[in-house]
Amino acid sequence: MASSGSKESAANNPGLQTTPDEATKGYIMRQTMFRIKDPKVSLDFYSRILGMSLLKRVDVPELKFTLYFLGYADVASAPSDPVDKTVWTFGKPGTVELTHYWGTESDPEFKGYHTGNSEPSGFGHIGITVDDTFKACERFDCLGVEFVKRPDEEAKGFAFIKDPDGYWIEIFDLNTIGEIVRGFA
Amino acid sequence: MASSGSKESAANNPGLQTTPDEATKGYIMRQTMFRIKDPKVSLDFYSRILGMSLLKRVDVPELKFTLYFLGYADVASAPSDPVDKTVWTFGKPGTVELTHYWGTESDPEFKGYHTGNSEPSGFGHIGITVDDTFKACERFDCLGVEFVKRPDEEAKGFAFIKDPDGYWIEIFDLNTIGEIVRGFA
Repeated sequence: MASSGSKESAANNPGLQTTPDEATKGYIMRQTMFRIKDPKVSLDFYSRILGMSLLKRVDVPELKFTLYFLGYADVASAPSDPVDKTVWTFGKPGTVELTHYWGTESDPEFKGYHTGNSEPSGFGHIGITVDDTFKACERFDCLGVEFVKRPDEEAKGFAFIKDPDGYWIEIFDLNTIGEIVRGFA
Repeated sequence: MASSGSKESAANNPGLQTTPDEATKGYIMRQTMFRIKDPKVSLDFYSRILGMSLLKRVDVPELKFTLYFLGYADVASAPSDPVDKTVWTFGKPGTVELTHYWGTESDPEFKGYHTGNSEPSGFGHIGITVDDTFKACERFDCLGVEFVKRPDEEAKGFAFIKDPDGYWIEIFDLNTIGEIVRGFA
């Protein structure tokens, strides 16, 4: 339990409320949405390279876009009824929601999306915990994934890769993250 | 299980791989990082209003920034040893990582961060599943939270609120999301 002297205590973190309001009980941090240019390329990346499953697809023809919800939930346990499947999907923590506006994939004028890591900055990245950072990154390398930072570069032990739109994805594992962070914290 | 005719089948989604590579087994979609201007204001918002706990704080004095990892994990079950706590934190799916570059909170020249929802666009929002969207939004309203879309506006039943930096947060609940999405899917 966090003692009052810990780095995470209210005393050390002005603004922090350490007793969550009962009204927020059961809240789940669910999805992170970002826009993608080409679903064919992104579905390949998130499923084949990162091992995610497509949990739910939602088409909105009136507004000409499609949402792809992907994550690590076991789809074999998903209900087949579409409405039940939506509820099942939205109850899973930690998913990504890829938004595709129809046509960008074949539009020569389309300039691509902003990753948030150059000006104007804001969003930075998502993070994936893997079994072994070096092993995973070796595999990513073989599969042609682009790196922002390799695990053997400075601040050793974790990596940043890019998804097909250039969004950054942090890669780390539970065996080494404790010691890596000890160096800072 | 997804039948070959379902919206989420490989046949309907070019690029999708439906058998995850064994190498990706155990991967967790962990955090979403975005930059914040003022930790006092953001910690208040994410803890008091959204009910998240501060799982881990990491200071990097050499580069003058601090990371705040927040989520819905039960901190009472967190180990007190800082290294163990890092490992515990990084094993939780669905957390946010708020990055604070020291000084922005009191810099009159600081222009704020880009939310990704105006040009140049990219990142869109995070999403929180709540117990009851209308009840939760009534509470947010009382607490002075700014809305992008209220749950009783068009496309009824879900909402978008803004965090202190203007990032969008989608609000929905499992009792109604199935029927809402049925309208589109």
